[in-house]
Amino acid sequence: MTSAYRDLERHFRRLGLLGEAAGMLQWDMAAVMPSGGAAIRGEQLAELRLVTHEMLTDARISDLLDRAEQDEVARLDDWERANLREMRRAWRHASVLPGDLVAAQSRSVSECEMLWRSARAANDYAGLKPRLRHVLDLVVEGAQIKAAAFGLDPYDALLDEYEPGASAAGITEVFDQLASFLPGMIAEIIDRQARGPAIIPISGPFPADRQRALAESLMRAVGFDFAHGRLDTSHHPFCGGVPEDVRITTRWDERDFTRGLMGVLHETGHAMYERGLPAARRLQPAGAARGMTLHESQSLLVEMQASRSREFVSFLAPRAAAAFGGSGTAWEIDNMHRIYTRVSRGLIRVDADEATYPCHVILRFRLERALIAGDMSLDDLPAAWNDGMRELVGVVPPDDRDGCLQDIHWPGGAWGYFPTYTLGALAAAQFFETAVAASPEIPAALARGDFAPLMAWVRPNVHAKASSDSTDAIVAAATGKPLGVDAFRRHLERRYLAA
Amino acid sequence: MTSAYRDLERHFRRLGLLGEAAGMLQWDMAAVMPSGGAAIRGEQLAELRLVTHEMLTDARISDLLDRAEQDEVARLDDWERANLREMRRAWRHASVLPGDLVAAQSRSVSECEMLWRSARAANDYAGLKPRLRHVLDLVVEGAQIKAAAFGLDPYDALLDEYEPGASAAGITEVFDQLASFLPGMIAEIIDRQARGPAIIPISGPFPADRQRALAESLMRAVGFDFAHGRLDTSHHPFCGGVPEDVRITTRWDERDFTRGLMGVLHETGHAMYERGLPAARRLQPAGAARGMTLHESQSLLVEMQASRSREFVSFLAPRAAAAFGGSGTAWEIDNMHRIYTRVSRGLIRVDADEATYPCHVILRFRLERALIAGDMSLDDLPAAWNDGMRELVGVVPPDDRDGCLQDIHWPGGAWGYFPTYTLGALAAAQFFETAVAASPEIPAALARGDFAPLMAWVRPNVHAKASSDSTDAIVAAATGKPLGVDAFRRHLERRYLAA
Repeated sequence: MTSAYRDLERHFRRLGLLGEAAGMLQWDMAAVMPSGGAAIRGEQLAELRLVTHEMLTDARISDLLDRAEQDEVARLDDWERANLREMRRAWRHASVLPGDLVAAQSRSVSECEMLWRSARAANDYAGLKPRLRHVLDLVVEGAQIKAAAFGLDPYDALLDEYEPGASAAGITEVFDQLASFLPGMIAEIIDRQARGPAIIPISGPFPADRQRALAESLMRAVGFDFAHGRLDTSHHPFCGGVPEDVRITTRWDERDFTRGLMGVLHETGHAMYERGLPAARRLQPAGAARGMTLHESQSLLVEMQASRSREFVSFLAPRAAAAFGGSGTAWEIDNMHRIYTRVSRGLIRVDADEATYPCHVILRFRLERALIAGDMSLDDLPAAWNDGMRELVGVVPPDDRDGCLQDIHWPGGAWGYFPTYTLGALAAAQFFETAVAASPEIPAALARGDFAPLMAWVRPNVHAKASSDSTDAIVAAATGKPLGVDAFRRHLERRYLAA
Repeated sequence: MTSAYRDLERHFRRLGLLGEAAGMLQWDMAAVMPSGGAAIRGEQLAELRLVTHEMLTDARISDLLDRAEQDEVARLDDWERANLREMRRAWRHASVLPGDLVAAQSRSVSECEMLWRSARAANDYAGLKPRLRHVLDLVVEGAQIKAAAFGLDPYDALLDEYEPGASAAGITEVFDQLASFLPGMIAEIIDRQARGPAIIPISGPFPADRQRALAESLMRAVGFDFAHGRLDTSHHPFCGGVPEDVRITTRWDERDFTRGLMGVLHETGHAMYERGLPAARRLQPAGAARGMTLHESQSLLVEMQASRSREFVSFLAPRAAAAFGGSGTAWEIDNMHRIYTRVSRGLIRVDADEATYPCHVILRFRLERALIAGDMSLDDLPAAWNDGMRELVGVVPPDDRDGCLQDIHWPGGAWGYFPTYTLGALAAAQFFETAVAASPEIPAALARGDFAPLMAWVRPNVHAKASSDSTDAIVAAATGKPLGVDAFRRHLERRYLAA
């Protein structure tokens, strides 16, 4: 059949391939590119985005969308209807912005991201600020254009890129519920852990190559296939690439292997989501990952829910001891589990435990809302950051390196992204609770280093859904409940406060 | 001033950036991509090439070229006129081919290149043949279309992509001159070396990481800047990337460090050419490397002319000994220089010495002419290869792995490329002879590991010229003579047959 919808599928397949080409170049930029390549890489990415933008906003696409929606929608199946809806969404986000602005955003972000790498190392917020302001100005410009066109608040217009349908009002409601019990619970956990057995430090050094070998064996345990992916190093760990070739990165700390190992398991959770997307829907908008909330739910399902469980730690502890030649009480399961479930008031979001993590996110949510709304200047960011840390987490960074310079997101143009980390944590708890109820063998399997039963539940219930429905609908269908804080709260109580 | 020419500069800048994006993805494919990423990478590259092809063959470009050539050429300076000429050349090559064929070629080549990696390892020519035939069929289809449009023989139409203006007739003339003296000279050199002191073998193993460290120090000696490039490993060594971020690759053989080291110096010569291209002309057609003859001349200038000189070997020998903990006669300059100037009848082109190398190239030139003309079938390639090796080099491969499967070029779609290796060797000899005459301190500097005087001559005379003129004109301007065999012959006589 000749149809507007089929033409759209062909067009979006081309757009998908170009987007993936840009994604691979971004992986390269973070993982292997020498510093001298930064400027021209920014130009290459900007050009790729401009071409994609021009193709997506071509008048033909608009005509095809209109025709498919008016004349063909009744003949489409559910998947195709979802795909058409996602096509319209992508078109709407792209067509509302002028091509010059898109290219300028891309260039500005590339330059700022690269500068951030050195500025963070040098604790030089003042040096980063002019470029960060340039990024923010362009982000606000885009958000305001979208806000006017979509009838949204500018911050909600940004959110919508990462988590379709989310709103600052809804997030505020959930975050307020968290704030109502978390501070008290954190104090209770810290107090309880202080009264329990002390952690016996595991002393290194732990050579990076041995950490890598152990990490690769754990990735394989989760189900990662190295014929379809890589593990590399970068300043900020991330999961990039494409479903057939997923690229995850980490950092190795030779003084402490425990964090890098969990970082790898976290990114492996992201990778499994990409690998589990339906092959038959590749390169179509509805075949892509739903949004950052579900993406983060998959990394936290693997890292926080599964890998920090007592069961998995009982699998991990002897293997870590063997990998590093360790022995004695420090390497035993009890101590290792204490390390992996320690709650503390720390400075760094990516190193935060699951109980304090939401506090880091609430801080960033508040700050970026203020910056986007123009209620705060970047000049005031370091002080506001430190005030917020004191209030929410109970510690104050000694410098900006471990304060407002710690994250790549804002230099990288990802404003409105942070809330999805905590929404993802809530979803992960809800998924894990439901999965274990449905497949009670999951904990015992984790104790054997076997993720297969967990993956067998999550693949059809989350991965295979891709963007065929909304985040809320996918969560509700999988768990029987809307996304909320209850399962997360029960999880914290079980893990940290049970007798 | 508003002008068609300025519009063309803007268009070609965009095309240049997209071409570079594809180039980086090709580097990734060869150097770091897991095997499972091959199919989708082929699609990504095909899409990038299709988009570039559509942009280049857009009717607006044709109009702009016509207007610039008719109305503006008198106002352009020499560089701009050369640039306009190169734009027309690129347009002519692209516009004559249908977009579907370009995409099919790209996909076919990606798949065949990937298969070649395993087929070569498995000595499986029969397994590769169907895909190689598919590549060849599409190459011939393109060559015939161009031949008809440009009034050329199909093989010359292919040559023109790699070495603008070259012809099979001209190459045959030069290759006949080489063939008139090389076989006799090779026999004489081999006989002479057999009567001289025997090579004392240097026994390993030589760990790859030490080879890498030594290779990196030599790259720095040549002038390679690791802030603007990388060294990685791949099946077939190559130089990719972009001038600001040059990516060279090599293979490490832990039984023999000598070949890998020279391979790195060879690719470093390519890299220096890219780094030396005029920054002010970046992303414009006339600012790119001239062609494969000059590109190869730069790798062979560094490897064959400079790095295998007695002077540079006197710098290298003690550093190699230190790197691998070697000592004794085997590690002394005389023995090392004998290793680096040994002439022998070998099977592998990339390992061939400079005296026998042209024989490998003449074989491939003859075979690919016959295959393109349809005078020979791929069924007959292995036998024809072996017959040709017997006749030209005096040895016969025991299997296809070391025979007709050894090169990536044909699976990779590079037909009409091989002759440029030997044209490049001739140019390298001519450049080095002229450079030393102009800067007699070059040999003494090489003995100190200092390539600066050689680079100081070659940069303005070759690198900075980019594509502002023809290969012949650049060679003639730099050396005062047209490209020929005389300097190469004198070089061989001096190095191998002097008293």
